[in-house]
This record gives sequence, C-alpha cells and structure tokens, in this order.
Amino acid sequence: MANDNSNNKDHKPSGDSGRRSFLGKTALAGLAGAGAVIGLSGCKDDAPKAGKAAPASAAAHEKAPGQLDDYYHFSSGGHSGEARILGLPSGRTLRRIPVFNIDPMVGWGITNESKAIMGTRADGSLKYTTGDTHHVHGSYKDGTYDSRWLFVNDKIHSRLARIRMDTMECDKIVELPNVAGFHGVFPDKRDPVDPAINYTTRVFCGAEFHIPLPNDGRDLDDPAKWGALFSCVNAATMEVVWQCRVDGNMDLVATSYDGKLAASNQYNAENAPDLAGMMAAERDGCLFFHVERIEALVKQGKFTTIGDSKVPVVDGRKAANEDPKTAVTCYVPVGKNPHGVNASPDGKYFVCSGKLSPTATVIDLALVLKWFDGGLKEPRDTVVAEPEIGLGPLHTAFDGKGNAYTSLFLDSQIVKWNLDQAIAQFKGDKAAKPVLDKIDVHYQPGHGYSSMGETKEADGKYFNSGNKFSKDRFLPVGPLHCETEQLLDLSGAKMVLLSDHTAYPEPHDGIIVRRDRVKTTQVHTMADFPNAVSAETAGVERKGNKAHVRLMSQAPNFSMPIIKVKRGDEVTITLTNHDKVEDLTHGCAIPTYNINFIVNPQETKSVTFKADHVGAYWMYCTHFCHALHLEMRSRFLVEA
Amino acid sequence: MANDNSNNKDHKPSGDSGRRSFLGKTALAGLAGAGAVIGLSGCKDDAPKAGKAAPASAAAHEKAPGQLDDYYHFSSGGHSGEARILGLPSGRTLRRIPVFNIDPMVGWGITNESKAIMGTRADGSLKYTTGDTHHVHGSYKDGTYDSRWLFVNDKIHSRLARIRMDTMECDKIVELPNVAGFHGVFPDKRDPVDPAINYTTRVFCGAEFHIPLPNDGRDLDDPAKWGALFSCVNAATMEVVWQCRVDGNMDLVATSYDGKLAASNQYNAENAPDLAGMMAAERDGCLFFHVERIEALVKQGKFTTIGDSKVPVVDGRKAANEDPKTAVTCYVPVGKNPHGVNASPDGKYFVCSGKLSPTATVIDLALVLKWFDGGLKEPRDTVVAEPEIGLGPLHTAFDGKGNAYTSLFLDSQIVKWNLDQAIAQFKGDKAAKPVLDKIDVHYQPGHGYSSMGETKEADGKYFNSGNKFSKDRFLPVGPLHCETEQLLDLSGAKMVLLSDHTAYPEPHDGIIVRRDRVKTTQVHTMADFPNAVSAETAGVERKGNKAHVRLMSQAPNFSMPIIKVKRGDEVTITLTNHDKVEDLTHGCAIPTYNINFIVNPQETKSVTFKADHVGAYWMYCTHFCHALHLEMRSRFLVEA
Repeated sequence: MANDNSNNKDHKPSGDSGRRSFLGKTALAGLAGAGAVIGLSGCKDDAPKAGKAAPASAAAHEKAPGQLDDYYHFSSGGHSGEARILGLPSGRTLRRIPVFNIDPMVGWGITNESKAIMGTRADGSLKYTTGDTHHVHGSYKDGTYDSRWLFVNDKIHSRLARIRMDTMECDKIVELPNVAGFHGVFPDKRDPVDPAINYTTRVFCGAEFHIPLPNDGRDLDDPAKWGALFSCVNAATMEVVWQCRVDGNMDLVATSYDGKLAASNQYNAENAPDLAGMMAAERDGCLFFHVERIEALVKQGKFTTIGDSKVPVVDGRKAANEDPKTAVTCYVPVGKNPHGVNASPDGKYFVCSGKLSPTATVIDLALVLKWFDGGLKEPRDTVVAEPEIGLGPLHTAFDGKGNAYTSLFLDSQIVKWNLDQAIAQFKGDKAAKPVLDKIDVHYQPGHGYSSMGETKEADGKYFNSGNKFSKDRFLPVGPLHCETEQLLDLSGAKMVLLSDHTAYPEPHDGIIVRRDRVKTTQVHTMADFPNAVSAETAGVERKGNKAHVRLMSQAPNFSMPIIKVKRGDEVTITLTNHDKVEDLTHGCAIPTYNINFIVNPQETKSVTFKADHVGAYWMYCTHFCHALHLEMRSRFLVEA
Repeated sequence: MANDNSNNKDHKPSGDSGRRSFLGKTALAGLAGAGAVIGLSGCKDDAPKAGKAAPASAAAHEKAPGQLDDYYHFSSGGHSGEARILGLPSGRTLRRIPVFNIDPMVGWGITNESKAIMGTRADGSLKYTTGDTHHVHGSYKDGTYDSRWLFVNDKIHSRLARIRMDTMECDKIVELPNVAGFHGVFPDKRDPVDPAINYTTRVFCGAEFHIPLPNDGRDLDDPAKWGALFSCVNAATMEVVWQCRVDGNMDLVATSYDGKLAASNQYNAENAPDLAGMMAAERDGCLFFHVERIEALVKQGKFTTIGDSKVPVVDGRKAANEDPKTAVTCYVPVGKNPHGVNASPDGKYFVCSGKLSPTATVIDLALVLKWFDGGLKEPRDTVVAEPEIGLGPLHTAFDGKGNAYTSLFLDSQIVKWNLDQAIAQFKGDKAAKPVLDKIDVHYQPGHGYSSMGETKEADGKYFNSGNKFSKDRFLPVGPLHCETEQLLDLSGAKMVLLSDHTAYPEPHDGIIVRRDRVKTTQVHTMADFPNAVSAETAGVERKGNKAHVRLMSQAPNFSMPIIKVKRGDEVTITLTNHDKVEDLTHGCAIPTYNINFIVNPQETKSVTFKADHVGAYWMYCTHFCHALHLEMRSRFLVEA
C-alpha cells in the first residue's frame, strides 16, 4: 500500500523547520504592509522546542469503543452559524446545534417552531440565514455551571441566542438594537447586590463595531460621531434591559465571581474607522462596568434611548465618567489592541492579553472596586502584573493551581505562566520567573480554554487550543481546510500535546464542562407540546383553503397512508412521534415541497406550505428507524 | 472528579445484557405490528460473543498529532444534505462538502456561483434547500478510483450531484425527470462496447418510489398505473441520457467491472402502495440492466418519452422482456424485500442481501450474460450461492481475499463469510461453512464498506460499519443522537473493533479510498475564474441602479475601506482573494444583508442583493486570517 500522498509534495507532517517556514510565510505576512506594528520585538527563531508531539503519549487520552468521555466540550461554530457539542478527551463531535443556520436534517429553519425562534419577515421567509457564532458560555450557579443554558452570539447580525441544556436546542434569539459586530458574551455569576441570587440572571454583550446611533442614514461620512454599546440581556426573558455607550471597540467579555463587575477588552480606543487609525495609540484598555451603578442610573431615569429602541442607554464614555465615585465605567490602560479578558478561578483577577504587545495584563478586581470607591488615583493602578509572555497573546485559561495558559497567535504556542510569580516580578522581584513552559501548537491559536477553567472548579486537567490554520496537519482536501483543535494535558509540570482534532470552520471559543455538571433530557415529554397529535385529534381538518394534517409516527408507519389536499391549499402538517424508545427518531420529507425535518421520540413539530403542484408525492421517513424504514412512507396527493 | 453522568441512570457503556435488551426494544419493535414477517426464524439469544470491544487494541489505529491518515473516507451526509470527507483510521472529519444544503460558512446557497449550481426559481431564490444524500461513489479508471469525481444522490428531490475531487466542491446538479425517491447511484467502470473507454462515462440511478408518469395529477387514486425509472446520466455533461421503466422499487445500484451490466435490488415487486402489499410476495428481485442493448434501442428510436421530458424511456418491465435474447432487463429472484447489491472485486459476482430474509444471494455475472444470450432457462439459474448469514442482512463489502462482510441490521452484527464456501455449500457440499466470524456493532448497522472494497484494489484492511442508532455509546446530549461509525480491522482471521466514531445524522453510505488515489488542488488558480478582480478592474462600476463592486482581499485588508451605494441599488460584490498561501482563506460578511461567504486563496466569488436599508454596515472578514483579522473590515455605506 502506498502511503505517500503524491499529489502534494509539500504536504507532510511538519517538523520544526517546515513549521517555522510556514509561520514565516503566513502569520507575519502582511503585518509590515499593515503599518507600523509596535510590540513585536522579541521575535526569535530559537523558540522553545518543549512540547513537541510525543507519539508515545498520544494513546493515553483515547477512549476505547463504548467508553464514555469525561468532559463535554461546548464549542461555537463560527460562521457556520451553529454551536457544537464534542466529547473530550476523544474529540468526537456528539452533536451539532443549529442556531443561526438552516439545518435541513433537523428541520431547523424549516419547521414553524424553529422559524418563530429564528425570526421571519412579513412574507414568512427567514429574516437571516447566516450567523457568526464566536462564544458559547454556560449559565452559572455558585460559581460553576448549572446546566440550564448556553448563550451564544451572532456577530453578523448582533443577535444573542440561548440553548436549553436539557434538550440542547436553541429556544430564544434576540437582536441587540443599535449594535454592530456583537462579539463577546458572558453571563453574570451572581447578582451584584442580592446575595440570595447566586446564579446567572444577566448576559453581557460586547459590541465590536461603532456605527451611527441610530443607524438610519445619518453620519455616514462622520465616523467620529459613531458609537458602540455594551448590552445587558435578561437571561430568563432574553430581553435587552440596558445598554452602555463606550469609547472604542469591544471584543471579549468577562464577569467577576462576586457579580459586581463585567469587563471587556477595548481596542481601537482611537475610535478610528481604518486600520492605521486603529493602531495609532500605544495603549488601549480593559474596560470595566460597575453593574450596580449602571442599573441604579436606569432606575433613576438617567438614560437616553436611541432611535426606535426603548432600551435605556447609559453613558459609559470616558469623558462622562471622570469621577470614580460616580463612574459606571473604568478604563484600565493595557497593551496595544488587546484581545481577550478572562477571570481567574480564585475570583481575584482578570487577565487581558496584549495581541500586538507581548504582554498579559493582570488586573486586581479588589483594586478596581477600590478605584470605583475613590481609593485609587489612576485606573492603571489596578494593574498588579504585566509579564512578557510571547508574541501575539490572545486568550488566557487557568488550572486552578495558580497558573495561567495564554495562546500566542504569532508564536503559534501556548505559554504556561504563574500568576504569583508575575505579580512578584511586577513588584520588582528580579528572581521571579513567571513563564514556566511553552508548547508549539499547529498553527496560530485563537482561543484556548481549560477544563472547568472558567469556574471555581477549574481542575487543571485539559486545555483545548483552537488553532486557526491546519495547513499540513491532515490529509489534503482541496483549498478549504478544517481548523485544528489540539488537546493538551495540563496535569504535569510540562504541557503535553495529546491529540489533533479537526473542526469545521470556524470554531472560535468554547467551554470544557465536567460531565456530571450536565443534566440532559433524553426523551421528550409529549405533554410539553401543546400541539401534540393523538389518536383522537389525528386526521385532516379543513377550514376554507387551509388544510391541517395532524399526523403521528410510530415505526414503521405514519398514521395516514394517504393524505389528500387540493391545489392552492395552505397545508400545515403537525407530526407527533409516538415512539418512546430513546434515539428512535423519525424524519419527514416531502418531495417538490422542500420539506424535511425530524421528530425525536415524543416530540411534535409542524410545517406550513402552499400545495401549488398537483401530483402524487411520497412523504417518507428520512431518519433510519426500523428494518422496514424504507417502507415507511405515505402518499401525499395534491388534487387539481 | 466525578465521572458519573448522574442525570441518566440508564446511560452507560453497554455490556451484552443491556445491548440485547436494547435490541429487544428497538430493532424488532413494530415488526409484529407491521404484518407477518417471513424469514425471521433463527433469532437466537446466544449470538456469537466474538468481536467484543477489545480496549487493548483500541490504540493501534490512532494517529499521533501530526501524523496523516492512510485513507480518505468519503461519506454521504443523509438528510443533512451534505457530503463529508473523513480521515481513516482516525475518524477525523476533514471537510464538509455542502451540496443540497445551504452552508453559510462557505457561502453555499448564498453566492451567485453556488446558487446557479443549486438551481433557482424565477425570483432568484433557491428552488430547494433540503436534500437527502444516501450514496457517494467515485469515478473509475481501470477498475479503481481515478480522483476525478464523486457522485452523490438526493433522494428527496431526485437529483444527482457531482463533486470535483481536485477542489472537493460540487460543480453540477441535475434533477432526474419523472423519478421519485432516487436512492442508489453507481458510476460505470468502463464502456460496455469500446475497450478503449476504460473509465467512467455513465452514472446509473435507481428510483425507489413509483409515481404517476407523468406526475401531473393523473392516476392519483390508481397506483397500479404508477411506475419507476432507472436513469443513466452522462458523467461528463451531467445530462440524463436515457431511462428504463421497471417493475417494483429500486434501492442500490451496482455496476460490473466489464461495463456490460448494471443492477439494482428490487423490493416491492408487488408494485404495492402500502406496507402490507409491499411485503406480500415471498421473493423480490435483483434487477439487471443490459446497458448495450438499452442504448441500441435508444439509437433505433425504440423508446417513448414522458410528459415534458425529452429523455428517451425504454421499457424494461418484465412483461416486455420475456425473450432473453432481446431483453434489456433480467429479474433474478432473491430473498424478500432485499437491500443492497454489491460487486465482488474479482469482477465475478454481485451479492444481493435479503433484509427480511436471513440470506445473501450470490449471482454469477457470467451466468447473467449467458441468460441474456439465451443460454440459461431461468433468471434464478444465475444464482450460485445463497448462504444463511444472519438476521436483517443489508450491505456487503469485500476484502479482496474471497471473503464478504455483510451488515446484519436486526442482529446488530457484521458477518464475515467466504464466497467459495458459500458456493460449495449451494452446490451441496455439506462440509462447507460459509460463515467465518461475527462481531457485534452498536447498534443496527446500515451500510458497511471496506477499504478500496469497491475496486479491484480491495485490500482487506478496514471496514466501516455505519450504525443507525448510537443510544448509549456516547455522552448523552439530549433527544437527538449522533450515529456511530465503527471501524473494524479486517486484517486478521477474526474482525476486531477498533473505534467508535460519531457522525451527524445521517451518513448512509461511503467509500474508503487509499490516500495515494486522491489528487487534490490545494490552491486555486486565479485564471480559472473569469470574473477575477485585479488591481486594474477593482472599484465600483455603476450602470443605472446596478452597482458592481469589484473587490480584492489580502490579509489584513479589503481593497476598499469605504464602499458607497445608494438605497435601491442592485449590488453585486465580486471578491477575489489575492493571498496565495495555502489555507489563507478570507470571509466576507455584511450585516443586515444576510451575506456571508468565504474566498479561498486565489479564488473569486460573487453575491448580488438589493441595498434596501440605508445606513453604515461593517463588511468584515469572518475567517481568521491574520493577527489583525479583527481589524480587517470596510464600511459599506448605503446612502438615501
């Protein structure tokens, strides 16, 4: 057997030389052309060789057939518009969750129920069929996941979606008014005031792009007048409850364990509309929001509204918040064009990465609160460490043992560093050595996150590096590459690369949740669906030119072998799956009418369409259900 | 760390007892209710225990980080509407290939180019957005894969799609006229007459459902008049060149290595419209097509056409083909409601499985040709073996060493059996023992296929069992389960289960191709795109209310920082990616206008939409490209 892939001589597993040559070509390409880039000094070819793939260790993490994984990995799906569930350490994709995309398998974007969640235009067609999910985060209770909800953003159309974690289905989508480029999302972890509310009630949303406010055609040529809003959504109702106008662009969002603070990394403090302008200033910021004060202003009526939106907007711009004691925002200067802000599991710090500066900035939350109380002179005084950790630092994860793990986009590495050492060094301890280890990843990591790392239960077991380029890591499949998710073992002093998983572009961020923290419902309850079809209600009901077909499925039959309607009818088919056995899903496809959806056991779904073609159409089961699955079909007859 | 998934007490890796109890609940459920099922005798609880998961062997097949896979696994995506590429033995999904579905990541169904391939209505919207892909097969040369094309069917709307294997993108879709339930597809392997044509020029398509011919409202209540057509498509032009009307329903298609014969398993020889009728007869058939004779009839004008279709239709029904010497079809009786017909790699046999009979029928192709030449009395005389192999046999794969591997849906097993032993037994050799081994799979296997097993290069290394239920094999993720793809090692005397891979529902069939047989293009050639945008042509061209925006991307910039159009304009954006480095893909999203697509290096794509909302919209890069990827955006301004 020939093992060479002869069509592509360059396509081989990379040794370090190939790897470095690739880095030279891609990662830095265009930086020079993009204008002066400050903070890129320290680029060296003698990058640590630690953490090279250790084939002998690769098997340790594998799951034998029939063995369950230890962790759930909930992942955003980028511009595929979906979210995903993987198992770790195996890396197996357990489920795609359609959110902003059409999924003809599930019938997402096809059934009436899913269209109502996605949003439709006046003519009944979907308002949007694209989405760009970046971040997925779970709801909290007592500082850890409570298995109620996942929240995921759409950057294209500035929407927040919620996924029920019992069924793992999206149940709500809300569009943020007057926001463009909704990037970062994070639930709060408890109420800023009421200690009894020790769980998520708010979801914070960062806006990356500034736009005219409102965006109704005004100020098109005057970007200096444009603005960006930080939004707060009620987790239970999914209503936007307030917004806060800020300077600059925001990406990621972090929330404190005490519920008092939310933050977003701020780039383009310059408010510039172009690349050169966005990179002009030496420092950008980590922007803190004082939740209690913002909500007090709202209560007091000290807000404006924008355009048609009724959502209260508080002014969080720097100029309006110069007095710390009344300020709702605090702009902590950090490295240039920062990316990523993450909360340490001990509740003490936020770490904001430099991106174009080789540093991570450690901000002490107690000092931020002290600044808000008037006890500190400068916002910058909240910074307790700023170690140099490598080139292109983006996102930081934690192991619960005092160490941080930051993705280095330009170095294509993950760096392990110690928070206490970094703080000591910042204080002047010349013996302090924050950086403990570096490991190559392949290639250009974006987000990195650790097992339970965004909770108080951070366990320091695994780290997922979401790499943006896979290039030569997998068999060539044409111009479109998958991304690489690399699983690192964090349990030892040195990080160990366990495996390369593939991912359909472009998973961005995710969380790794211990499996006992997830409680699912494996079979629906029929009574949860008010439109469930029973033997009593099954059949065709006609009202004028509306025909309602109430149908049941039970392997290997639909309840009606023949369904007759008339040309021009508006047909609604409601289908209840009466099978009760877990995994016994049925599908329902109708040719010509572009209908396809599934019903899981005990579930009910419906579709509505106009019967505008006469003829005989076999409605058939698309989801293998039984030895006689192929025979499971009914005649859908459209008479003239 | 707690390892129990406490929410679902039943959810645990199954031992045999749980497994059998599940089988009792699901696989056979409903069979009794479906009417008398013949051929299910032999059901026994003492099923072979061979082939239980051997955790010690699980690591042998793994790929360490950076190691490439040995095989491509091209898989259908079922009612997800897509096709997929996986690597084996790792099971990693290397790429999704959107075909009949909308893929907002790629922009499939969004760009003008993809919409032209998918097909649109008069108003420019997509004709169909659903599809049910069952089978994917590669084009052949000299009896093995030639890396030109993959062909994949859509059962819902009876369409055949072609995927270019250099770029792994769909380039043609054709709708088969007067066909419903297009199920099986197989390319021919050489020309039936011209020995110089030793490669694929035709693609054969089986139709499962019978419908009124034409389906224009006639005969709605008279299914006895309905019919099904077997179609031949020109592989190069993707035009339907002829059709052949047959009795009964067809699923799978197989083609002979000499190019002379195509076949389809025929169920519902009864032509019945309902389940009881479909199961009435004791035997159904394996239906052979004499390709040369059909095409001679077409040349001679001995055909009809149906409705508006111009495609010649030859009569292949039994009654019209009683004289073997002029017959175009041969109906070989096989077990009840058969499923699956597969060609042995030595070119001698087709194996047709019983589904509701516990047998596989081995048909000697030389004898089929002899029947067509008048040298055999009965079609049944072409059968040279019919071993009892287990319950619910569906599909058969081969190892090139004389052994066959058949999926047993009801037994949830794969059975290994020897062709020569089966033939000897059929001849009366009582010492012959065809069945060599059985192995449990989890659960209910549909298609199974072996490495290079559908070519003359069958190598007997791996077998993929596509299982329809995964139930308890993976962490619970709510009511919707993934499927299980299980990889078996065929190299020893006994089959060994190597790993459980997950698959998004519902992969159906696939092929496993040695990696040196696949030649891809990793970077496009700009000149292949006639509408490529260069520095000379870039800019906005206006003609009346049509605005053509010709744009280039090069990390981290689009060529125009500001794009201005007017409300009401019909805007076309053509985008060429000028980056040359492999994997340096850019995305292009425009908020409010529901635009998202990617351009791979040196590629050009376009979108057209009406600019009906005034305001400022940030067109941004959605596919991570550079350290300044977030800053890669332009202002798309729509003026009143």
